[in-house]
Amino acid sequence: MKNTFGTSVSVTLFGESHGPEVGAVIDGLAPGIPVDEAFIASQLTLRRPAGRISTARQETDAFRIVSGVFEGRTTGTPLTVLVPNADTRSADYQRGPARPGHADLAAYFKYHGFEDYRGGGHFSGRITAALVAAGAVVIPALKTKGILIGTHIARCAGINDAPFGNDLSADLKKLNALPFAVLDEDSGAQMRAAIENAAAHGDSVGGVLETAVTGLPAGVGEPWFDTVEGVLSHALFSVPAVKGVSFGDGFALADMTGSTANDPIRMQSGRPLMETNHNGGVNGGITNGMPLIFRCAVKPTPSIALEQQTVSPVDGKEVSLRISGRHDPAIIHRARVVVDSVTALALSDLLALRFGTDWIAS
Amino acid sequence: MKNTFGTSVSVTLFGESHGPEVGAVIDGLAPGIPVDEAFIASQLTLRRPAGRISTARQETDAFRIVSGVFEGRTTGTPLTVLVPNADTRSADYQRGPARPGHADLAAYFKYHGFEDYRGGGHFSGRITAALVAAGAVVIPALKTKGILIGTHIARCAGINDAPFGNDLSADLKKLNALPFAVLDEDSGAQMRAAIENAAAHGDSVGGVLETAVTGLPAGVGEPWFDTVEGVLSHALFSVPAVKGVSFGDGFALADMTGSTANDPIRMQSGRPLMETNHNGGVNGGITNGMPLIFRCAVKPTPSIALEQQTVSPVDGKEVSLRISGRHDPAIIHRARVVVDSVTALALSDLLALRFGTDWIAS
Amino acid sequence: MKNTFGTSVSVTLFGESHGPEVGAVIDGLAPGIPVDEAFIASQLTLRRPAGRISTARQETDAFRIVSGVFEGRTTGTPLTVLVPNADTRSADYQRGPARPGHADLAAYFKYHGFEDYRGGGHFSGRITAALVAAGAVVIPALKTKGILIGTHIARCAGINDAPFGNDLSADLKKLNALPFAVLDEDSGAQMRAAIENAAAHGDSVGGVLETAVTGLPAGVGEPWFDTVEGVLSHALFSVPAVKGVSFGDGFALADMTGSTANDPIRMQSGRPLMETNHNGGVNGGITNGMPLIFRCAVKPTPSIALEQQTVSPVDGKEVSLRISGRHDPAIIHRARVVVDSVTALALSDLLALRFGTDWIAS
Amino acid sequence: MKNTFGTSVSVTLFGESHGPEVGAVIDGLAPGIPVDEAFIASQLTLRRPAGRISTARQETDAFRIVSGVFEGRTTGTPLTVLVPNADTRSADYQRGPARPGHADLAAYFKYHGFEDYRGGGHFSGRITAALVAAGAVVIPALKTKGILIGTHIARCAGINDAPFGNDLSADLKKLNALPFAVLDEDSGAQMRAAIENAAAHGDSVGGVLETAVTGLPAGVGEPWFDTVEGVLSHALFSVPAVKGVSFGDGFALADMTGSTANDPIRMQSGRPLMETNHNGGVNGGITNGMPLIFRCAVKPTPSIALEQQTVSPVDGKEVSLRISGRHDPAIIHRARVVVDSVTALALSDLLALRFGTDWIAS
Repeated sequence: MKNTFGTSVSVTLFGESHGPEVGAVIDGLAPGIPVDEAFIASQLTLRRPAGRISTARQETDAFRIVSGVFEGRTTGTPLTVLVPNADTRSADYQRGPARPGHADLAAYFKYHGFEDYRGGGHFSGRITAALVAAGAVVIPALKTKGILIGTHIARCAGINDAPFGNDLSADLKKLNALPFAVLDEDSGAQMRAAIENAAAHGDSVGGVLETAVTGLPAGVGEPWFDTVEGVLSHALFSVPAVKGVSFGDGFALADMTGSTANDPIRMQSGRPLMETNHNGGVNGGITNGMPLIFRCAVKPTPSIALEQQTVSPVDGKEVSLRISGRHDPAIIHRARVVVDSVTALALSDLLALRFGTDWIAS
Repeated sequence: MKNTFGTSVSVTLFGESHGPEVGAVIDGLAPGIPVDEAFIASQLTLRRPAGRISTARQETDAFRIVSGVFEGRTTGTPLTVLVPNADTRSADYQRGPARPGHADLAAYFKYHGFEDYRGGGHFSGRITAALVAAGAVVIPALKTKGILIGTHIARCAGINDAPFGNDLSADLKKLNALPFAVLDEDSGAQMRAAIENAAAHGDSVGGVLETAVTGLPAGVGEPWFDTVEGVLSHALFSVPAVKGVSFGDGFALADMTGSTANDPIRMQSGRPLMETNHNGGVNGGITNGMPLIFRCAVKPTPSIALEQQTVSPVDGKEVSLRISGRHDPAIIHRARVVVDSVTALALSDLLALRFGTDWIAS
Repeated sequence: MKNTFGTSVSVTLFGESHGPEVGAVIDGLAPGIPVDEAFIASQLTLRRPAGRISTARQETDAFRIVSGVFEGRTTGTPLTVLVPNADTRSADYQRGPARPGHADLAAYFKYHGFEDYRGGGHFSGRITAALVAAGAVVIPALKTKGILIGTHIARCAGINDAPFGNDLSADLKKLNALPFAVLDEDSGAQMRAAIENAAAHGDSVGGVLETAVTGLPAGVGEPWFDTVEGVLSHALFSVPAVKGVSFGDGFALADMTGSTANDPIRMQSGRPLMETNHNGGVNGGITNGMPLIFRCAVKPTPSIALEQQTVSPVDGKEVSLRISGRHDPAIIHRARVVVDSVTALALSDLLALRFGTDWIAS
Repeated sequence: MKNTFGTSVSVTLFGESHGPEVGAVIDGLAPGIPVDEAFIASQLTLRRPAGRISTARQETDAFRIVSGVFEGRTTGTPLTVLVPNADTRSADYQRGPARPGHADLAAYFKYHGFEDYRGGGHFSGRITAALVAAGAVVIPALKTKGILIGTHIARCAGINDAPFGNDLSADLKKLNALPFAVLDEDSGAQMRAAIENAAAHGDSVGGVLETAVTGLPAGVGEPWFDTVEGVLSHALFSVPAVKGVSFGDGFALADMTGSTANDPIRMQSGRPLMETNHNGGVNGGITNGMPLIFRCAVKPTPSIALEQQTVSPVDGKEVSLRISGRHDPAIIHRARVVVDSVTALALSDLLALRFGTDWIAS
């Protein structure tokens, strides 16, 4: 399906960095979901670059919903949101050498040079604006069903944020209001300083995002293949720069023993629940009633000002490249709302498959 | 699609631990692929438990191909392989308390108690025998096209194997012949000792599998959503106990800078190639011509002999559980051929989508 | 997906006419559906050839369910049914000239000669035994939800059956018990005589099947593309020999005017319902609360004893062909249970998508 | 997938009759296909109402391609076309009684009243403008590969057109240039007169469209389920008012014998081909090298001026309805370019699955 993801609730992405508009079609939404344009705008603001730790490209993201909403609510037919590209400077982005770490060369092989190369074309992070707008349609609906999603920058430039605390829902609410999503302010200040420092050296940094979802019903997920982990990771690897996805304690589980990794089960409030959550809320690919916890490794932004060695794919010439233009010394603080959005869309799909198309609005 | 994975080449899984047979249907195979039953048998042997580091369950895996092969070659219509369950001892597996770390409780929520609970039922690792048989049909066909897949136990019980060397194809060939797939024999001996030690204490250990694929054409993968990373991770999270998947340097990329993480590009043998492979052969979700490299975190086997705290889902009673029966103190050495098989099936699908259904046999 | 059909409830088909077994995997079934093996057997009997109006091939259809059923009920994991081929006489079916009207030549082009040609291989009507067994799992579950499916031979060899009467449910119950499904016995006798007459002349006849489904909820179907008509026709064209599918008055609608084709709407038992049913229970691709009515055109069986002109695909030689072996002078009376089965499976999928995976068993 | 159709080449539809824009996203297109905007415009003209035999709604269809095209060619990433709605008069279309023969009542059941009811909303024929624009992207690419699609009004208001002649390609070229697509001018004049007559009486008429496709390679189609017939019919039933689809001689085959329905095979120009084409170019769901021939039954337009009996779904009141506003006394002459477009899209998908994503542009 390529640019469409999902079975019962699906999202289709389109657009290029320097085209007139990027957009998304969400299909399979329940009819009657209130659509909150102010919330969509606020989510787009969280994604939008701001200050010295981001690119200088300025977009107003004056999105338009052109189908699927009537009198303020979803109709149940495809909802299309268009986000115009306003601040495109194609002069910055003539076909040039393949930028290391970017999709340029791989795309050249795949599309034989017919791809729109300007600003990364279809592979630009710009397209995530459409994903965020789409996610912002379902996030409030999930909230109405008691399902809360939130992400913090667990690590950036080698600096750790504080871990999630005992009151996970409170943490998520706090994070969702922050432009730079950390649980510990001091860690956040250090991270921002490290990003500014990387920018000053013409370099960039990466990090790890940790996401939690509370309120998910137990029994969701469709193994063997459409497990919660499989479906979510499939979607999450579409977020540019994500190179790793893990659930629960993830790679740390590899060094644990069974007796420490297994989550003991006790009756809690009348139902069986785990005492710990090393498995991140999923066993056998199915939600187990605990919060869903996962991590995404975000590589450092590949666009850097430092000189790099590369090749011009058209003529096969080796060249030294200094990328000018406007770039992000880090995208992790912007990526977290993309991760939240992708998570909301993928979970909406699994929930609709399990409980029917109307469930989310019922 | 739940138990079917893939678009052009797909695999459908079925069966339970204590049913008569587990099996797989592979659809969309090119006609004319030679089917090597001896190779299928040898791959099943790699998956089969052996020695003190595995369960004592003994299976002969006397598989039968009941459709899709005629005169030794694939017909192009669905190939079905059945693997009988011979050594089932249901007395070991009455419906009991939910085993911590297993799918038992999550499955109980999802299937309302109608699931076959014997030996984990449909969620047993036993079903991977069918996956391995299916993978063994396409692995030789990929090899004919110059595509080689191999996996080593990069880490187990805290012990590291040697990293892949400069001659990756030689490493892969070597690994594919080993029952305990490590590049460094001494490390392997330490790992086995650690597994035996865990077994002696009624406990279990986990590890990290690292897989490499050489010979993949550049330009394969269907972003935004059906990226190489997205499709592979989707499939890999179906392998029991996998809790993390990362590409290239994976989570280590999160601590790198752009100038170190970006792979410089040079002309090599007349085509542009990366000098390093931090990105693991994929940029923008598309193969870039470098070897595909990824890692799977494998949690310790949840079945352990030590006493655990849990609940009986039927009556909600808290109980102390000591799992008797036959269990694996580690599955990582058995899981690697499952990872290879899943990888072969998922890549066959992406390749058939890109180059057509006949390509693999042409 | 090729040999897999369906999104939430799917069926995967495999097998060949002269292989050991044909089979089907049904995935996405709700857990807890009682599985009635006697009913499966009786449905297979309706499909099985009998008497002078069918082939002399004798199959006992001693099916085995090898996964997905535990203690007499569906588990919710894939249900696999195998139907052994007992009476195969491959000597009748050496690779010969392409039989006109059959898949032989088209399959030769597609599979480059690697296809199993014996008895039509994967394209044999024999594979419908697996479809019928699969359908027989969901038909009783649909009945429990008040949904009744039935088909009559509306026309055969130019002879019309009586139309459906006012008590449609009574008609369906009656039809489901008949080996030769007609509403009017005299018409049925004439049809059988015409089939025997065709057999005596080495020829074959076709006909039209008309199906009705009562009790479907209104509001089912997923336009624009996954309409009730689109999804059903997609599945129905898989039934061998079906060359046309129409809904309601079908092709007769083409000659009507809007004022006669439109179904007037009146309040009936407190809800709006149509007074007539020219649209066959579907408007805009969505069920409207009226019975679903559709017709399938079934071409005459292509295997005939009369001499035919054809080509041997291997060497390109023109030859005269007299098909010996065992053949059906008509398949329409056997095809109706296949149509019922396909209908049940496709509707189960649409219903599960709409109301969730548990609905059918709730 | 609901509003997305196709696996390798897919189309996603969105929009409502009275929204700002309707549109389509085509994904999976080969890179490098020349996009001919003049041709898209001319195809939209064929769909657009004109003269006394159509609605008076006037649309300029000033479409915009907002993604997926760069320097006049497809990029290989999603192509999005938007068609603005200019001439919407919502005063004509307040929520009123359910219009008989329309989707109104069924949609009300499905969407619980949240649907956009204005002008039929998402179920309006207006959305086919986007389908036609999408089809117009692939039709020239198919032509470059020697594949020609064309449709004539085989029957309208009981009047037959002349059948296809011996030079099918010439017929198709002729038809593709005609605003009212008939092979026989006199028949066409009679049809138009009958349509005008129906309009004068406040009524409407239907008909039968017959489509031919020449130049398709043999061996295309993915049985059992993704047969050429299954995939095409699935898509064709999405065309509003289509209530029947048949291949080759279709329902007439039901009255034939095997000896007349089977197409004899002879060597022609060095390859085996059928002497007749009763099977419409498909056997066993796979193209056989003969032209693909199929028919669509188009019901009379449900919007008529004559008084009709119906119900207001909101309050359950029975009412007499006279539909004012602007309506088509026939849509068959406009529907044919929609059928051509849907056919082109569905065949592009089957061809890309078979021969790879680049084939159509190679």
